Amino acid sequence: MKLKIKLLSWSAGIPVAMLRETTANKIGVHPQDRILIRINGHKKFTTIVDTVKKGLLKEDEIAVTSEMVNILKLKKSQVVDIELAPIPQSLDFIKKKLHKKTLSKQEIFTIIRDIVSNSLSEAEIALFVVSMYKYGMSMNEIYYLIEAIQETGKKLKLNRKYIVDKHSIGGVAGNRTTPLIVSICAAAGLTIPKSSSRAITSAAGTADTIETIAKVDFPMKKLRKIVLKTNGCMIWGGALGVVPADSKIIHIEKQLKIDPEAQLLASIMSKKLALGSKYIVIDIPYGKSAKVNKKKALELKDKFEKIAKHFNKKMKVVLTDGKQPIGTGIGPALELKDVIKVLDPTKKGPKDLEDKSTMLAGVLFELTKKVKKGKGQELARKMISSGKAFEKFKEIIKAQKGKPKDMNKIPEAKFKKTVLSLKKGKVVSIDNKKINTMARIAGCPKDKYAGLKIKVLVNDKIDKKDPVLTIYSETISRLNEALNYYKKARPILIK
Amino acid sequence: MKLKIKLLSWSAGIPVAMLRETTANKIGVHPQDRILIRINGHKKFTTIVDTVKKGLLKEDEIAVTSEMVNILKLKKSQVVDIELAPIPQSLDFIKKKLHKKTLSKQEIFTIIRDIVSNSLSEAEIALFVVSMYKYGMSMNEIYYLIEAIQETGKKLKLNRKYIVDKHSIGGVAGNRTTPLIVSICAAAGLTIPKSSSRAITSAAGTADTIETIAKVDFPMKKLRKIVLKTNGCMIWGGALGVVPADSKIIHIEKQLKIDPEAQLLASIMSKKLALGSKYIVIDIPYGKSAKVNKKKALELKDKFEKIAKHFNKKMKVVLTDGKQPIGTGIGPALELKDVIKVLDPTKKGPKDLEDKSTMLAGVLFELTKKVKKGKGQELARKMISSGKAFEKFKEIIKAQKGKPKDMNKIPEAKFKKTVLSLKKGKVVSIDNKKINTMARIAGCPKDKYAGLKIKVLVNDKIDKKDPVLTIYSETISRLNEALNYYKKARPILIK
Repeated sequence: MKLKIKLLSWSAGIPVAMLRETTANKIGVHPQDRILIRINGHKKFTTIVDTVKKGLLKEDEIAVTSEMVNILKLKKSQVVDIELAPIPQSLDFIKKKLHKKTLSKQEIFTIIRDIVSNSLSEAEIALFVVSMYKYGMSMNEIYYLIEAIQETGKKLKLNRKYIVDKHSIGGVAGNRTTPLIVSICAAAGLTIPKSSSRAITSAAGTADTIETIAKVDFPMKKLRKIVLKTNGCMIWGGALGVVPADSKIIHIEKQLKIDPEAQLLASIMSKKLALGSKYIVIDIPYGKSAKVNKKKALELKDKFEKIAKHFNKKMKVVLTDGKQPIGTGIGPALELKDVIKVLDPTKKGPKDLEDKSTMLAGVLFELTKKVKKGKGQELARKMISSGKAFEKFKEIIKAQKGKPKDMNKIPEAKFKKTVLSLKKGKVVSIDNKKINTMARIAGCPKDKYAGLKIKVLVNDKIDKKDPVLTIYSETISRLNEALNYYKKARPILIK
Repeated sequence: MKLKIKLLSWSAGIPVAMLRETTANKIGVHPQDRILIRINGHKKFTTIVDTVKKGLLKEDEIAVTSEMVNILKLKKSQVVDIELAPIPQSLDFIKKKLHKKTLSKQEIFTIIRDIVSNSLSEAEIALFVVSMYKYGMSMNEIYYLIEAIQETGKKLKLNRKYIVDKHSIGGVAGNRTTPLIVSICAAAGLTIPKSSSRAITSAAGTADTIETIAKVDFPMKKLRKIVLKTNGCMIWGGALGVVPADSKIIHIEKQLKIDPEAQLLASIMSKKLALGSKYIVIDIPYGKSAKVNKKKALELKDKFEKIAKHFNKKMKVVLTDGKQPIGTGIGPALELKDVIKVLDPTKKGPKDLEDKSTMLAGVLFELTKKVKKGKGQELARKMISSGKAFEKFKEIIKAQKGKPKDMNKIPEAKFKKTVLSLKKGKVVSIDNKKINTMARIAGCPKDKYAGLKIKVLVNDKIDKKDPVLTIYSETISRLNEALNYYKKARPILIK
């Protein structure tokens, strides 16, 4: 049936189409059923249906959410063809995995294509996520997953020889190495188109941090210009549409708070491949309050290396100490302040953050053979001490519509309170998860200037009444809640 | 934040609220996030959010789907209070089940309450369904599930002594015993408020069958009047709202095509309890092409009996022969014709259908001590031969806004074709699943007059060119598709 597009400026976060009830009845669909929409006779897309009785729409009109208008580039009054959607075959394949069977390349490609064309419901995608979570994926299945996610997305084509990338599996509070590594590498002539995430369970992601002084959402074309001009970028991956399948799966994973390893690997690697990276360093922090222990870290390392080999990429996987936060600031703006202090040769930033960032950047220098083995970190430190990395950082911030001079006056949150030690003793542990939770209670990542500044490191000896950390918050109630959490959960143990 | 309700006559099949984008930003929600809506300061309900840029809504207005308007009885311009929804605790409980742990009463009640208050997304409910499917539920967990589903729903209160019910777990094609049992029992003075389902995977449900000559969707009040007047009813359970949790879970089960046993038991029993039944007969057909084999049937019998004992109900579970369809018609109207022929003392209906229906009705006569043990079926047959059951059937149809005289002129589908045997031999098997699939290809349950009429029974000896079955369809193409399926899948084996 042919209908005309009516634009309503309506957003639902997902693709939905709205029909007059009488029109829906004609093709036999009810709300929640799915229709297939054809554009120009070839492009196909599936959506669930809402209906209205009168007023909003005429019988020959269809309204779709802005998510669909954007994806399909629909125009006002454009004619589309709709019919009842066929039942997707991929549900059968997902259930094969639920019964512990291995999926073929064709089966995985069908599932991912159905996810991207919106033919699977959120419940069906949840079934896929749970099945992967419970029964895992073989290396071959992971390769197919990466290929399928890539096939259904977009690619950044740069025609540069040394395109590098860095990824951390996360789990360590603070740990804002990305802006440092991007600045160091780009300053030294490597190309590093870095896309990052926003915070999911942590206090801040690189995208949240950079967003305090610059824009992080750019379409592909604009991004390409930024990278060609500056050698690097620090943008939010979600805005690019490079891996739409991945974004949809992650949307469900967030709801379920389940993160299957196969999807984690596929998600990371498909993004690296989509951005054209050829040399990649992977940071796997391990430890008691990190995401993984040493055994799991070694297993992951093995899998990353197999994937790199399969896709013909140069990769080094580094296992790092994840027993405590890296850097002193926890929260978007507070972490940015640490980054700037490390970059600015006239200032002194947290040593652990500088050491880790230069080490990881050094790995990329060695992988690309820019320097001999063992000389990478040295070059990285030179990029900082010479001020070149800081200049590059400002250049990228400017290219991302930020004002470098704003860096000197990053505001503080309205309220702050410093917690003092109740006794003399030694810092025994600093729990990453609890520190992140505490920073979130203080308002992160939504309140950009909220968070924590940690004043101690594990093994530090401290006196009674020495400062342990400062809480920053936009409201007194959040400040007090964070303080209460500190007293109850004891994220920092002193003995 | 206080907002005014704007009515848009908008249906999405699920509760959704629409806000102006600027309003959504004020409380920090994006499309797909959830808000908590308070009505009169106490009633609470959660929904996902859509946003619009302009036009449709003012900043102080909120539109909600008609599903919510009905559930919450909202009026135009009514003021409601909205805030960001808290994260539901029940996700943690669902994940306990995913990790094979047993759930407590409080945990199961929380999950079911969150499902009913719409605090769980479809992906989260899917996780619950999959977890039950993979790891099962203990008897105690099933009891809690039944209690929780009941607690969150409505009840039919009749103040009658002998309220009876019948349920078949399904899987046998045809098998339209319900209208017969309802008519027989109601004619003999028992009260039988029967709610039935529509077809999910079969050619017809009782609701589809009755709908060919009467209405099947009534609100609770009207239903009560029908039952008090006629002793019985044959309505569609979905319209009653007696078990909203169950309806939401089934909505997800249908999408996933997964049917966990615990939920099957809870779904059946919570409905029986909500309608106030005290004496219940359960029909479990078993056999090669039925839903279950004999071993599984005995396990289910045991569980049904335990549940009945726990809830203090008189129950008999009957294992019946499910090796072939019961009755000759397959499809809403064709099954109704069988039913009427059995009921009408001047006509001769399918013997297997009459035998099974009178046997099951007889069990209810014995359970209620209306007759002595062993005398139940005799009374049931008398109800038919005396014409009393037929009169009662007409009375109920009339009460459900049908016209009894329409029963004499049930139309035939536009096209039909009789399949003849290609050889002389014996009917070896008739596959229930394939017969249902074939009837659905012919147009069931949507086309009410489509379906099959089966001319043979297992063990019948037949000659070459003897009729095997007739296909009824509203279009030539569906007729041919059904015929092709018959040739390929061979639902009836002759050797």
